[in-house]
Amino acid sequence: MTGTPDSRHEQSDRITISVDAMGGDAGPSVVVAGIAKSAKKNPNIGFILHGPEEELAPLVARRRVLRDRVEIRDCRGVVTMEDKPSQVMRKGKGTSMWSTLDSVRNGEAGGAVSCGNTGALMALSMLRLRKMPGINRPAIAILWPSRNPQGFNVMLDVGADVRADAGDLLQFALMGVSYTRNSMDIPIPRVGLLNVGTEEHKGRAELKEAYTLISEKADGASFEFVGFVEGSDIPGDIADVIVTDGFTGNVAIKTGEGTASLIRTALREAFEYSLLSRFAAILAYTSLKRLSKRIDPRRVNGGVFLGLNGTVVKSHGGADATSVSAAVKLAFRLAEQGFAQKLAARVASAGELTQDGAAGGDVDPSPSAQALSQANAPK
Amino acid sequence: MTGTPDSRHEQSDRITISVDAMGGDAGPSVVVAGIAKSAKKNPNIGFILHGPEEELAPLVARRRVLRDRVEIRDCRGVVTMEDKPSQVMRKGKGTSMWSTLDSVRNGEAGGAVSCGNTGALMALSMLRLRKMPGINRPAIAILWPSRNPQGFNVMLDVGADVRADAGDLLQFALMGVSYTRNSMDIPIPRVGLLNVGTEEHKGRAELKEAYTLISEKADGASFEFVGFVEGSDIPGDIADVIVTDGFTGNVAIKTGEGTASLIRTALREAFEYSLLSRFAAILAYTSLKRLSKRIDPRRVNGGVFLGLNGTVVKSHGGADATSVSAAVKLAFRLAEQGFAQKLAARVASAGELTQDGAAGGDVDPSPSAQALSQANAPK
Repeated sequence: MTGTPDSRHEQSDRITISVDAMGGDAGPSVVVAGIAKSAKKNPNIGFILHGPEEELAPLVARRRVLRDRVEIRDCRGVVTMEDKPSQVMRKGKGTSMWSTLDSVRNGEAGGAVSCGNTGALMALSMLRLRKMPGINRPAIAILWPSRNPQGFNVMLDVGADVRADAGDLLQFALMGVSYTRNSMDIPIPRVGLLNVGTEEHKGRAELKEAYTLISEKADGASFEFVGFVEGSDIPGDIADVIVTDGFTGNVAIKTGEGTASLIRTALREAFEYSLLSRFAAILAYTSLKRLSKRIDPRRVNGGVFLGLNGTVVKSHGGADATSVSAAVKLAFRLAEQGFAQKLAARVASAGELTQDGAAGGDVDPSPSAQALSQANAPK
Repeated sequence: MTGTPDSRHEQSDRITISVDAMGGDAGPSVVVAGIAKSAKKNPNIGFILHGPEEELAPLVARRRVLRDRVEIRDCRGVVTMEDKPSQVMRKGKGTSMWSTLDSVRNGEAGGAVSCGNTGALMALSMLRLRKMPGINRPAIAILWPSRNPQGFNVMLDVGADVRADAGDLLQFALMGVSYTRNSMDIPIPRVGLLNVGTEEHKGRAELKEAYTLISEKADGASFEFVGFVEGSDIPGDIADVIVTDGFTGNVAIKTGEGTASLIRTALREAFEYSLLSRFAAILAYTSLKRLSKRIDPRRVNGGVFLGLNGTVVKSHGGADATSVSAAVKLAFRLAEQGFAQKLAARVASAGELTQDGAAGGDVDPSPSAQALSQANAPK
C-alpha cells in the first residue's frame, strides 16, 4: 500500500486528500482510523498520508478498506503543539505538516487535513500555498451549531490573526459567503457583522467602516447583509455567516465550547445524583443521545483556512476518528466543488466591483489594497 | 406606604436600596414583585422606589411585606431601551433612572438597582456618581457559572466601554479582586487575563503590557496572577477573576448565553421527541430541575458597575421577579460590606504602590494616569 495509489489522477472521479498523520494529541493511529472511516463511506476518496513510514505502514495495512487508496510519504519531522510558528517556518522542512501542504501546492491533492498546531499550520500554509491574489489576511472559518435550518453557522475569523481592519472584515464576509454557498447549499447567505449591539452607532470605529463597506458590496456579491449581530446570534438564526476579527472570534468559540462542556458535566452530575435519577437516565438514554448528537462538536470538526491558494482543513488537536473523518469529508466536499478556484474568482470579481469599472490590469492596486485604503482614510 | 419609611436611617442595621421601577421589559409590576421577594427574605432591607406614583402605589400596596419599607419617589420620565446614552445624559433629568442614581449620590441609599438600558445607565452613573479618583474607565463585572468551588467566576469588563488599554486592564484586575473578595469570601482571588492562548508571546500588544503591569502588582495587592487564560477558562476553574476589554467580554458572555440557551432548547426537544422520551422526562424531572437551577442565569443576575462613587447593579432587561430579587440581594450585600469605600481605598493604595513611595498628594498625577503613561510608552 505504499506504492502509487490509483486514487490520484488515474480515476477521473477520485479525489485525493493530503493528510498529516502526526501532530494530533492522540497520534497517527487515530488519524488512520479516521481516514478508514471516510474511505468506507466514500468510494471516490484517496489519500496521501504524511509521517514516518515505519509507524504508518502497519497502521494502514491493518485496514482493508485503505488498500490501494493510501500513498505514504515518509517524513521524519513532527511539528509539536509547543512549537512556535516562527520556528516552524524556518526549520519546518521535512516535517509531516510541511509535506502535507506541499502535496496541495504541487497539485497532487485537492485539499489538506491536519490535527496539528494551528498557529504553525497557518504560518506554513501561508509560506507554502501563499495568499490568494487580492487577499490581505487569510482567515479560519468554523461551523457553529445554531438554530438555523442547516443546523450551523459559519464564523470567521476564529484565530488566523488577532487583528482585522475594515477592509479585512469585508474580505472575510466575501470569503465566508463563498464558503457557505459551497459547503452548505445556501444560494444567498445572510451575513452578520459581530458587535456589542445591533444599533449602527455602536462599537469600534473599524466596525462602522466595515458596516459601510459590506453594505455596498451586498447586491453585487449576491448575499444579504443583516447588519450588526451580537454574540447571542452566533448560535442563533438571523445570519448564516458571522464576521469578526480573529481575537474576538477565538474567544467567542472557546467561551461557547467551555459553556457547552460545563453544561454537559452538570447534566451528567444531575443524572448521577440519586438511584432514581440514574434510573431516569437509563430511560432518557435515547433522548440524551439525540441531544448529544445535535451538539456534538465532533460532527462539525474542521476549521477551514480561507484566502490561500489551496484548501486546508484544521482538525481539532484532540480529535478522535469521528472528528478526523468529519474534517476529511469537509476537505473532500470543498475539493469536489472546486471551491478554491471559485473563491479566487469571487475575490477577483469583488475587486473589479470595488474599482467601479476601472480597467483593472494586473499592475493596478489590488482590490484589497484599495478596500484597505478606503477603510483607513476616514479614521 | 408613600410616607417616610422606617427603613432609612431610623434603624441602624437597615440598609436602603434605591430601585428604578421603570425601564425593564416587563414593567414595574415585576420590579415590585422582585423587591417583595427580597423583603420577605431579608428583614434588614428597605427601598426607595422610583417611577410614576399612581402606577407604583397600588402595586406596592398590594404587597403586605412592603408596608413601611418602601418610599416612592414620583418621577414621570422613563429611559427606554432605544434611547441613546448621549440623549439621556442631556435630557434624562426627571427620569426614574436619574432619580434612582441621585438617591445613592446624596447618601439616602447604599446602592442602586435598575433593569433599564445598560448604555444609558452607565452614562448617567458616570454623570451623577462620577468616576472614583484614580479610575480611568469604569467597568461592568458579572458572575459567570463556572467549575470553581464557589460556582462562579467574576468577569470584567463586559461592556462599559469597547476599549481598554494596558493601564485600564490593570485597574479592572484590581477592581475585580476587590469585588470578588467582598462578594464571595475569597481572600486571595486568582486573576486571569483573557487572550487567544496561554503562551506569553501571544495576543495583542496591550495584553502583553497588561501582563507585565498585573504581574508587578500581584504581591502588593494580595491576589494571585495566573497569567493568560482562554475563553474556555471563563466557565473553568483556574481563575476567579477574568479580565478583558468591554468588547471582547460582551461578545463572550452573549456567546455563552446563546450557547446555553440553544442547549436548553435542544434538551427540551430531545425529551419531547416521543412518548417514551416524554415519560423519561417525567422521571428525570428532579434531575433536570437540578441542572436547570445550576445553570439558571437568573440566580446570578446583576452586572455591577465598578469604579464609580457608589454601587450600581444592572439587572437584566428581561428580568423576572427572581432576577430582580437577585440583583437587589447583590446590591444589599455590597452595601453591607461597605464595598464602595473598600474599593476606593484599594485603588488609592494601588496608586501609592505604583508611585514607589513618592509622597503622592492630591495634586500628583493620579495613579491610573501614571499606569496609563507607563502602558503607552513602549508601544
